[in-house]
Amino acid sequence: MNVAIMGYGVVGSGVAEVLKKNHDSIEKKSTLGSLDLKYILDIRDFSGDVNEKIMIKDFNIILNDDTVGIVVETMGGLHPAYEYVRSCLKAGKSVVSSNKELVAAKGYELLSIAEEKNVNFLFEASVGGGIPIIRPLSQCLAANEIVEVKGILNGTTNFILTKMINDGMSFDEALKTAQENGYAEKDPTADVEGFDACRKICILASLIYGKHVYPENVYTEGITKISLSDVEYARAWGGVIKLIGRAKKLGENKISAIVSPAFVPRTSQLAYVDDVFNAILVSGDSTGDVVFYGRGAGKLPTASAVVADVIDCARHTSKKRFFGWGDAVPDYVIDHLDAETSFYIRAEAENPDEALTAARKIFGEIVVLSRTGAPKNEIAFTTTTAVERELRTKLETLYMINPLSVIRIIKD
Amino acid sequence: MNVAIMGYGVVGSGVAEVLKKNHDSIEKKSTLGSLDLKYILDIRDFSGDVNEKIMIKDFNIILNDDTVGIVVETMGGLHPAYEYVRSCLKAGKSVVSSNKELVAAKGYELLSIAEEKNVNFLFEASVGGGIPIIRPLSQCLAANEIVEVKGILNGTTNFILTKMINDGMSFDEALKTAQENGYAEKDPTADVEGFDACRKICILASLIYGKHVYPENVYTEGITKISLSDVEYARAWGGVIKLIGRAKKLGENKISAIVSPAFVPRTSQLAYVDDVFNAILVSGDSTGDVVFYGRGAGKLPTASAVVADVIDCARHTSKKRFFGWGDAVPDYVIDHLDAETSFYIRAEAENPDEALTAARKIFGEIVVLSRTGAPKNEIAFTTTTAVERELRTKLETLYMINPLSVIRIIKD
Repeated sequence: MNVAIMGYGVVGSGVAEVLKKNHDSIEKKSTLGSLDLKYILDIRDFSGDVNEKIMIKDFNIILNDDTVGIVVETMGGLHPAYEYVRSCLKAGKSVVSSNKELVAAKGYELLSIAEEKNVNFLFEASVGGGIPIIRPLSQCLAANEIVEVKGILNGTTNFILTKMINDGMSFDEALKTAQENGYAEKDPTADVEGFDACRKICILASLIYGKHVYPENVYTEGITKISLSDVEYARAWGGVIKLIGRAKKLGENKISAIVSPAFVPRTSQLAYVDDVFNAILVSGDSTGDVVFYGRGAGKLPTASAVVADVIDCARHTSKKRFFGWGDAVPDYVIDHLDAETSFYIRAEAENPDEALTAARKIFGEIVVLSRTGAPKNEIAFTTTTAVERELRTKLETLYMINPLSVIRIIKD
Repeated sequence: MNVAIMGYGVVGSGVAEVLKKNHDSIEKKSTLGSLDLKYILDIRDFSGDVNEKIMIKDFNIILNDDTVGIVVETMGGLHPAYEYVRSCLKAGKSVVSSNKELVAAKGYELLSIAEEKNVNFLFEASVGGGIPIIRPLSQCLAANEIVEVKGILNGTTNFILTKMINDGMSFDEALKTAQENGYAEKDPTADVEGFDACRKICILASLIYGKHVYPENVYTEGITKISLSDVEYARAWGGVIKLIGRAKKLGENKISAIVSPAFVPRTSQLAYVDDVFNAILVSGDSTGDVVFYGRGAGKLPTASAVVADVIDCARHTSKKRFFGWGDAVPDYVIDHLDAETSFYIRAEAENPDEALTAARKIFGEIVVLSRTGAPKNEIAFTTTTAVERELRTKLETLYMINPLSVIRIIKD
């Protein structure tokens, strides 16, 4: 059987490299007589590249070649990746994708076509890069009802936050360092605003709870407003600030799903995930908490996840892998304002003592936090748990303060 | 299709419970019309038990019932589990086992019979309880060459060490607490002497490197000799003491494999695994370090892993899962004395200063450690890396000291 790669960027070239480097063991594991890379599709020129001879620019060559049974999509972006993948599946080819944007937007539709055509559509690499998570969720934890999933799903923001926490860098400095190290794009919006993490939590939630969750239905907040003062208060509180994507089952047809910075206590495994590493914590009703940790991005980690899916496709040519990923239903993800949370609040107050007294009156129990070197007119405290809308209303009535930061708190 | 459980202990009764509780979703995921528990085999009496009606005492009832396609073995021990499992496989039934002793001793043979009969022999629950590890290793990381695997594989010893580290309990006190909490058996030998962890690293090594590794070929050291002084020195060094099982590829037909206490630095994810939790760190050539964390034992976590395997068997009735687990070869695991390591050494010395000078002369570079409240005649230091045999020889020539503890050091 032959394989084609669409998109010869970082991940695509990594896939070509892994397929070549470990060709014999991969072929053996595929349980097919042969498994060879036949085409690489990319509109760009790669003269002098080691794979130059198999580079093509016309998608139809792949589509019309019956010897190509498995197509790898590592183009990224929604178009034309979506049209190409759909055509391949409709032509009876299995597709492996690392494209979280595609899977988050079109997962249900593409899985339905794959099912209809009795081929596979696999996307292990779309979440957590080289960390095995899609397959363990859909297979190993199959006997569990998943109560909640939460994770550090974006390496760029985790690198930035780690630099802020461990090295006292400002957000801007840390972002610059990330860019210099190749961990952040020139335009870092998708990472720092949480959009990338949002796509990933959508994929996980769709997979776990069985109904397609679209990114536009998931409230998403990035890390651009996090200050070193907040980092210090988190430390005083006994934890760290992380960008967390979460999804939780609330009832038969309701889930909460959100991406936002959060105070994570030192008692949680997620607090120890530093630099570009990712980690996903899955809480099952039987198995308890299980954590998957590793590099969430990078050429070879991601490529190796893609190739593992290729091997799986090769081993299941006549039988599709089962995903319980159904169509979206309306009003499935609740408004984040209707979810329960507790807040860390940092604010300016002309009269700090009076402000804290007022805060106690309005919020009930609060825990006051302090840091060395804080301005005299700064206060910080955490609230108890309540519906977010209620907490926000209360905060508005606390007219004596000018809130500078409001960050959600995660318990364990 | 019907399922039978052999062994109605903690795990077996958990399997019955999970199969019942999540029956509908499990049946759906199995993609079979029906998946029902028909028999539970146990020689003990369970009058009044919720499953009393399906309890049987005669193994042949299961063996001769063609409607039983999947047999769960949760008896533990080698006999008669081995004979029963072998008979079931030979009769064309798939078998799911949580029995690490059985898999470590007979894995290759049983997998060979399963292959011959085109049925499955799965054992996800035998390592790491509810942590998905067997399937990710054999599938998700299939595109990787695994460089090394190391892990905290035994919850009992990790609980004891955590109590020593965090609460300053002695080994004996901590063991007693573990027993009171149901985390340690009345006879804790298999746990505290490392035998349980040894079986698990054998299973992992066999799976990863493709040749059966027998427990008797893996050097195994338990935690009974660890003292609070050692715990203190580990802290001063910048880490914690953990019981670590490790296997590493050295060449085409050579691996190292060992179970022993080790100094683990705070830079390693394994340092943050506390209480009864387990974690397995897999280093792949492409994917880098991946860590799997969760409850390594317990009724429901383990049962849920067993049931996930049952679902997998049901979905692959006509196709076996692929494991590259071959027969053992002689001299495959090197003598632990031929492996490279570095040591932490604690000793008595009449003249500490002279002893350390001598140690420097013999070992070359050493790092001296100190702790508050140490007796005047106590010294502690770490060595650089060398072949263990060489380090031991050098230690013997250091006649000025009386070694009290010698513990291996793990880097990252």
